[in-house]
Amino acid sequence: MSEKTIPDHAVWPGTVHNGILSVPSGSHPAPQRGFDVAEFANRLARAQQLMAESGMDAMLITTEAEFRYFTGFLTQFWQSPTRPWFLLVPASGQPTAVIPGIGYPPLAQTWIEDIRTWTSPQPQDEGVSLLAETMHEILGDRARVGVPMGPETTLRMPLADYDRLRAMVPGFSFHDATEVVKTLRMVKSEAEIEKIAHICRIASDVYDLVPSIATPGQPLVETFRAVKIELLKHGADDVSYLVGASAPGGYDNVISPPGNRPLTEGDVLMIDTGTVYDGYFCDFDRNWAIGKADPAAKHGYATLFEATNAALEIARPGATAGDLFRAMQKVIVDNGYACGNVGRLGHGLGMQLTEWPSHTNADETILVPGMVLTLEPSLDMKPGQGMVHEENFVLRNNGPQLLSRRAPEQLPEVH
Amino acid sequence: MSEKTIPDHAVWPGTVHNGILSVPSGSHPAPQRGFDVAEFANRLARAQQLMAESGMDAMLITTEAEFRYFTGFLTQFWQSPTRPWFLLVPASGQPTAVIPGIGYPPLAQTWIEDIRTWTSPQPQDEGVSLLAETMHEILGDRARVGVPMGPETTLRMPLADYDRLRAMVPGFSFHDATEVVKTLRMVKSEAEIEKIAHICRIASDVYDLVPSIATPGQPLVETFRAVKIELLKHGADDVSYLVGASAPGGYDNVISPPGNRPLTEGDVLMIDTGTVYDGYFCDFDRNWAIGKADPAAKHGYATLFEATNAALEIARPGATAGDLFRAMQKVIVDNGYACGNVGRLGHGLGMQLTEWPSHTNADETILVPGMVLTLEPSLDMKPGQGMVHEENFVLRNNGPQLLSRRAPEQLPEVH
Repeated sequence: MSEKTIPDHAVWPGTVHNGILSVPSGSHPAPQRGFDVAEFANRLARAQQLMAESGMDAMLITTEAEFRYFTGFLTQFWQSPTRPWFLLVPASGQPTAVIPGIGYPPLAQTWIEDIRTWTSPQPQDEGVSLLAETMHEILGDRARVGVPMGPETTLRMPLADYDRLRAMVPGFSFHDATEVVKTLRMVKSEAEIEKIAHICRIASDVYDLVPSIATPGQPLVETFRAVKIELLKHGADDVSYLVGASAPGGYDNVISPPGNRPLTEGDVLMIDTGTVYDGYFCDFDRNWAIGKADPAAKHGYATLFEATNAALEIARPGATAGDLFRAMQKVIVDNGYACGNVGRLGHGLGMQLTEWPSHTNADETILVPGMVLTLEPSLDMKPGQGMVHEENFVLRNNGPQLLSRRAPEQLPEVH
Repeated sequence: MSEKTIPDHAVWPGTVHNGILSVPSGSHPAPQRGFDVAEFANRLARAQQLMAESGMDAMLITTEAEFRYFTGFLTQFWQSPTRPWFLLVPASGQPTAVIPGIGYPPLAQTWIEDIRTWTSPQPQDEGVSLLAETMHEILGDRARVGVPMGPETTLRMPLADYDRLRAMVPGFSFHDATEVVKTLRMVKSEAEIEKIAHICRIASDVYDLVPSIATPGQPLVETFRAVKIELLKHGADDVSYLVGASAPGGYDNVISPPGNRPLTEGDVLMIDTGTVYDGYFCDFDRNWAIGKADPAAKHGYATLFEATNAALEIARPGATAGDLFRAMQKVIVDNGYACGNVGRLGHGLGMQLTEWPSHTNADETILVPGMVLTLEPSLDMKPGQGMVHEENFVLRNNGPQLLSRRAPEQLPEVH
């Protein structure tokens, strides 16, 4: 994109932080779309190793992220609820796709060779008998089949069809495969990290433009619209998620679309985007005071900045998601606040806006290099008046590498 | 939006068609956001009547569209898979929401009064015991609970948690509620139609700009980017779905994101968008020849235009989705083509990109006033080389009212 105007980051403190790598501004070439076949072969090999360890003969995949993880099949068509899509990942050998006919041309362009289709929609037998037949052909009459059934998973096929499928493969038993897909997807390859880093840079560049976009009196919906347009102009493929709020002194609703209320002096404006490049998300927010920043908002903001520092300082391989939570929570509580209503202080991200793990006191997921995580401390200044702050990083052997360009150390003002 | 440039539609034939209301161009005020409480009260009353007819004591809702249908709760946050959301719709009385704490502030702004929250994420008990307790409190120890389990539905909670829930309410039986939600959602209110009409007008205006946006040599990804930006500038909230293709003489892949291949003389370019205003979709496409239109492509296009006419001519209350299919299929076959790989020739739309019914030979859903439908004939000119055409309309007592501005009668050219 040629018309980018990159502001001078030197005017904003906090861009470089304690030796943690910062994100350069300026133009950045887009990473290659898609992945080499070696990436998929490696994913499959890792999956088959994990499946062997848990005694599974195959996994049955029905969801967008997992289907794409193993095949590379990228489409927004999953928004249509009409047709299920199935992928059988066997304990050895190549995956087999059982899909609606409309998907054949794009799936045939991926590394998947065994593709079976039915004419869909066909609600009286929406791929179920073809899937059952394929399972018998590949797995025989008895098999242990993994299906993700645990936290953060769903089954993307009608429940009645799932029951019908199980009745058609009576020798098969179905077991929870959440740990397999979670273990695989939590650790990103360098090619995946490059895509996330790219979209994080784009969002960082656009957030830097907000003081020149937003003005007091502007309806929030128009601020958001302008930000979405800038994200696209800067190279985002899609602005899948852009939420936020602007409210006097702070906000407590952090997941809503914008309304028509104009930005008003005394507001804190928050914008949070999960913007996408080649199927990979960033997920971080920024805050601005509309007009002169209120001391309470400044203190809340400074606390969140300090909480983020505390987590960055201990984010090392071997630490846990719970450690990150506790480091942030301590700063928030020591500064006299309660944590906000978000329920966690960060999470994984990648092919989805949010992924495992969650930074909660109870999540003792051990951090390993290659994990891409948010740090998302939030607090309540008073009932109904809170703030949330968010950064994205990838964990390296020696600590965190920021993927979002660090937010300014003090609450920036929009005039 | 002030900078719109509306082309002169008079240069394109087909804008007005046989007395079927056409869509005016020019600026159009945006409908009110959200709905009056009366809309939700009416939806609930209709639901309770259908539930009474099928002997249900309550419905358990877990999915975005149904949750929003009954509550008005609009958020992109459903993209985060971490947290389930539950709504109990009882056979009499008001609904009760059982939701993660992060959702309380926005849900409290809706008409829902009984909102119960848990601190989430909490994967060891992700709302399940609170939901079971709430079900017992509201429904007693024995109840027939409806859950959508049929075509085009999914259960949006982990499968293991659904099993855990059922074990915690042993006196409850669970039954398929697909017909209830399908019957309700297939017929739109005037307020819903107004939102769909608005986003259809926006997309119509932007499609009219494509000949001034697209040029031979432009990478498809940049064409798409420019169209997305125009949609936002014209008042779309989000461009949730924009797919298409540009390929020599026609295309067979109708669901993919754009690549970097430049638009090339001899291509047929197709763009299909499901763009959103206030949570309601349009869903229609347009075709253009890049350079001089090839006679085969012109004939294919004319056939699809004629197929659409054939469906519009018979679209009356009392006709069926199957009738629409057969009317379009006859034109396609009579012109010497096979139908494309889409598997149906149109469908419902509204809160989702696609909804029930499907225009297939087997779908005998009876059309009633208030249904919003696409007509989406597709054909193959030769293997790998097809075309698809789409319009959106609402069925009125006396026939169809187009919501998309009718496509030109002949394949337009981009030079």
